[in-house]
Amino acid sequence: METISPGRLKTTYLFNQSFASLLKLLPEGKVVIVTDDHVYKAQQEKFSNIPVITVPSGEATKQQKTVDDIIAALLKLQADKSTVIVAVGGGVVTDMAGYAASIYKRGVRLALAPTSILAMVDAAVGGKNGVDVGLYKNMVGTVYQPEYILFDYHFLSTLPQEEWVNGFAEIIKHACIKDAALFEELSNTSLSFYQHDPARLASLVERNVRIKKVIVEEDEFETGDRKLLNFGHTVGHAIENVHHLPHGHAISVGMVIAATLSEELAGLPMGDTRRLITLLNAYGLTTAVKFNLDTIWEILLMDKKRANDSMNFILLRAIGDGIIMPIPLTQLKALITAYLERS
Amino acid sequence: METISPGRLKTTYLFNQSFASLLKLLPEGKVVIVTDDHVYKAQQEKFSNIPVITVPSGEATKQQKTVDDIIAALLKLQADKSTVIVAVGGGVVTDMAGYAASIYKRGVRLALAPTSILAMVDAAVGGKNGVDVGLYKNMVGTVYQPEYILFDYHFLSTLPQEEWVNGFAEIIKHACIKDAALFEELSNTSLSFYQHDPARLASLVERNVRIKKVIVEEDEFETGDRKLLNFGHTVGHAIENVHHLPHGHAISVGMVIAATLSEELAGLPMGDTRRLITLLNAYGLTTAVKFNLDTIWEILLMDKKRANDSMNFILLRAIGDGIIMPIPLTQLKALITAYLERS
Repeated sequence: METISPGRLKTTYLFNQSFASLLKLLPEGKVVIVTDDHVYKAQQEKFSNIPVITVPSGEATKQQKTVDDIIAALLKLQADKSTVIVAVGGGVVTDMAGYAASIYKRGVRLALAPTSILAMVDAAVGGKNGVDVGLYKNMVGTVYQPEYILFDYHFLSTLPQEEWVNGFAEIIKHACIKDAALFEELSNTSLSFYQHDPARLASLVERNVRIKKVIVEEDEFETGDRKLLNFGHTVGHAIENVHHLPHGHAISVGMVIAATLSEELAGLPMGDTRRLITLLNAYGLTTAVKFNLDTIWEILLMDKKRANDSMNFILLRAIGDGIIMPIPLTQLKALITAYLERS
Repeated sequence: METISPGRLKTTYLFNQSFASLLKLLPEGKVVIVTDDHVYKAQQEKFSNIPVITVPSGEATKQQKTVDDIIAALLKLQADKSTVIVAVGGGVVTDMAGYAASIYKRGVRLALAPTSILAMVDAAVGGKNGVDVGLYKNMVGTVYQPEYILFDYHFLSTLPQEEWVNGFAEIIKHACIKDAALFEELSNTSLSFYQHDPARLASLVERNVRIKKVIVEEDEFETGDRKLLNFGHTVGHAIENVHHLPHGHAISVGMVIAATLSEELAGLPMGDTRRLITLLNAYGLTTAVKFNLDTIWEILLMDKKRANDSMNFILLRAIGDGIIMPIPLTQLKALITAYLERS
């Protein structure tokens, strides 16, 4: 157990502990679980005697309407300022429950129990939450730190293969922006290696949580280094909803595009984009998708990273060394057009 | 100009300055005004060449649905992280626009230009924002400090008499919990006195802003003294929506009930409730209303100040000296029942 304290709340990370041990830390009778119907089906025996609010699973439900439903359910349960919301699920659940906890009665207690690799190494860490507005991703939300994040690897036993692949996209992202040694380790191993070695998996998850945690501690409100975590996400988010690609595949394509731009603009050594593509493919990730730039561009313009006429784009100087570079929108559009013509 | 810095943002108070002088402090082309249709009609010449989002006026619109509409309008305007939302209106507008600013793209810049006495001395100060959920008041929202609060007393020239009365309820509240000398001043003057003496009005507003500002600076997230500001609001909020009473009248009744309980529980000298009733009546405020306790009680149970089986109730030890006292729900119900039987 160790704590960080970005903002007004400390987050305690509970690595390799059970869901029951999290419940023991919380006041009896004051816990409300928020989960989705898939997780509920698989894990309901863990929730006995605790009120549960269930949302439909899937990214399509990550909208204000679903949060309104969570709020209505909290009111019906007479949840008060001493209630602790415990989110159990993937990133969609932790994002929506975290957002609901931050606005219900202007903020109640919050604990997260991520059940997917993606949520463990990314979505649940750092306090960002929110919902999509139509096709625009994460347009509404807050930055609100949970009191606890529980890493119970037993949840992963029912995780579909597709979700493992999704999660490793964020792990590869961390390697690209901050950890060249991790990039090497991933290149020398495989997804199935981690799936069959619980100890190595636990240490991989913890290593990735630490990468994100350090960045977040130093920059809770994303005025600097935290922007690096958006590597691959600017174009990735835009194509994710338009092409109904899973998040991991979409940002995988986004990382390849960002790496290509990095060779041109940030001095990334020639051939490193090729190494990245090889690694992404080895972990089952898509690295190219045909897309219509005009449709994608409309969504890119709404990106939170846009400021006036330029976009704060994340590039690589080298594998393991991400940087933030404002790119004028006209130049960015020309570069992506050129990329599309080449590929 | 002076600043306070509760939380991550400093608030600059612009006393007795014009709306145009606020605009001069903000980046050209990045301002979006949020206002209601009444204020828009009266003030639109001040808004030329600035995009305006207009919401319907009135407490009934203070719901998530209206905030969803503000978000959709911001997206349509391609508002980005460098946009400044300027809320121009009464408490309903500043509450909704402040909430929208705090969640749009996880937080954009915010300035408030309150146009009513109530918003100037209360709603706009302290960073609390939010919306009602059905009949439950302020059930959803955040604590988010604006960068600027502008006090332009010219806005008051079109304020209806009813709204003056509403605003003075909060001024009398401040006197009750923190400022016995202000209670004396108010007892020796009248509403029409302040309406006809701009200098005395300006100094009255500033004095009240300072009372709230000091409390908020010391307790942004309401773990202590900030609760005092809820004097009269626990019962007041509950009867406000059920009986469709204006906010000032509802909390006026709430203050009388709280003062009555204070004589019983907190040593408020006998007769001070009578002095309070006289003052409230002199400023045109209702001090008694017939209500059905069972209906009110259902709403009281949802109050944010409830914790488990007791309610943190605000009482007076003396005029100018408020205290927080947890009252068990059973005792509270008995006391209000007795009050209703006597009155």
